[in-house]
Amino acid sequence: MRAGVTAVSADGARAVRDTLVTEEPCEISVTHRGVEHTVAVTMRTPGNDFELAVGFLFTEGMLRGTRDIAKVSYCASGPPEQLYNQVTVELTDGAPFDATKMSRNVYTTSSCGVCGKASLDAVRVSCSPATPGPSVSREVLTSLPGRLRQGQQVFETTGGLHAAGLFDSAGELELVREDVGRHNAVDKVAGRLVMDDALPAAEKILQVSGRASFEIVQKAAVAGIPIVSAVSAPSSLAVEAAERFGMTLVGFVRDGRANVYSHAERVS
Amino acid sequence: MRAGVTAVSADGARAVRDTLVTEEPCEISVTHRGVEHTVAVTMRTPGNDFELAVGFLFTEGMLRGTRDIAKVSYCASGPPEQLYNQVTVELTDGAPFDATKMSRNVYTTSSCGVCGKASLDAVRVSCSPATPGPSVSREVLTSLPGRLRQGQQVFETTGGLHAAGLFDSAGELELVREDVGRHNAVDKVAGRLVMDDALPAAEKILQVSGRASFEIVQKAAVAGIPIVSAVSAPSSLAVEAAERFGMTLVGFVRDGRANVYSHAERVS
Repeated sequence: MRAGVTAVSADGARAVRDTLVTEEPCEISVTHRGVEHTVAVTMRTPGNDFELAVGFLFTEGMLRGTRDIAKVSYCASGPPEQLYNQVTVELTDGAPFDATKMSRNVYTTSSCGVCGKASLDAVRVSCSPATPGPSVSREVLTSLPGRLRQGQQVFETTGGLHAAGLFDSAGELELVREDVGRHNAVDKVAGRLVMDDALPAAEKILQVSGRASFEIVQKAAVAGIPIVSAVSAPSSLAVEAAERFGMTLVGFVRDGRANVYSHAERVS
Repeated sequence: MRAGVTAVSADGARAVRDTLVTEEPCEISVTHRGVEHTVAVTMRTPGNDFELAVGFLFTEGMLRGTRDIAKVSYCASGPPEQLYNQVTVELTDGAPFDATKMSRNVYTTSSCGVCGKASLDAVRVSCSPATPGPSVSREVLTSLPGRLRQGQQVFETTGGLHAAGLFDSAGELELVREDVGRHNAVDKVAGRLVMDDALPAAEKILQVSGRASFEIVQKAAVAGIPIVSAVSAPSSLAVEAAERFGMTLVGFVRDGRANVYSHAERVS
């Protein structure tokens, strides 16, 4: 989106044009056995919306893979400005969808309580089993943020988008997705993998443009991705999750250096 | 939290210690007329949890101010590791709390649909009316990110925390809160203002360390803060919201320069 901006500096104020990254709400719904359930409304950057919806439902444990999906579509009714802001995933009758799961945050139940450990327990249930996974060299690892930036189409013009990139262990970028929300960028990657029936992605590396929070690691874990690398810092719970799930978590990847927070055996 | 890290560089790998920013889930509940409702579980950095809970409920329109609050407390039961991860806000009987609001995202209803415009409509209802507000000079405005960083106690050691700072129009920092989630940092600021009965904060400036998304502007709008400044880019919907609510939105505040995206009349 183009917008008029007043640029102020020591030289005074002048009117310029700027490109803004688009942020719009997206409602994700599930239809299961003829009943429609609204699952979430997320603020996102439009584009790859089907991947976003499928990836979100997958990483939140509401579908197991492409075999559970009958159809993905935009809402056909409603005013034009809403047409592309509502995505419905129709599940097969055999999908183990549980509508009661939606009434609470998926990371907690009244029985297990609320703490980091309980969150980890809840996630582990839906994780793909950890595999030895690929080995990655320091040279490749520290090249990933630059390769991710090259792969981004929008970043240079707006400066406002998070990116998630899927790489092979030789550092080849296979998939890049962007979003105003970093979790959405990861969901779009996961959704593509689900739709391509390419899961678990046990030989891949996920590089994200920002920080590594718990939910980034959680989503990668569900997708079976064994190595997660972030340009900036990981959180405590992200490190605990990666440690527990057998994943390699890398942070502060900059200038030929990187910090490996868990399972450093995959870095050569 | 301290953690063991493998630092890899061209010189090889060595074991170092790093400080991680803490991320833990927090369950926010409301008790109203004797009934407890779980409202949300958010990943957050522990600290200022009562402010977080109160600010979240306030900026989401579930309480009007300090007059609606009878008591704020941690959950007294449960295992020790959960004790400080559950905050309950007890509302007065007279509070206009509506439990049915919680079943859907507050930004949408089935009647108004899902689009940026509907989100703006939904927020406007709970906004404080826009006021002329303060005037701020370019010199003060461009000094805010540096002053915010000075005010952060944790940032320099972890590099992993978002910050939100409340300034007066002369650039004096009055309040700074940090969190792994940028929206949480703003909620903590808003919660402090609610608990101090200092709302609307019609003469203040909110400076945030990262980008300006819709929800940052929305939360500031509900708190009546007329100027929001971000170190990085705003999103399209953030600019639309600021324009519509009569707020001044500033982005890319760096090196003596700033971009003003809406209501530039408050910048002198």
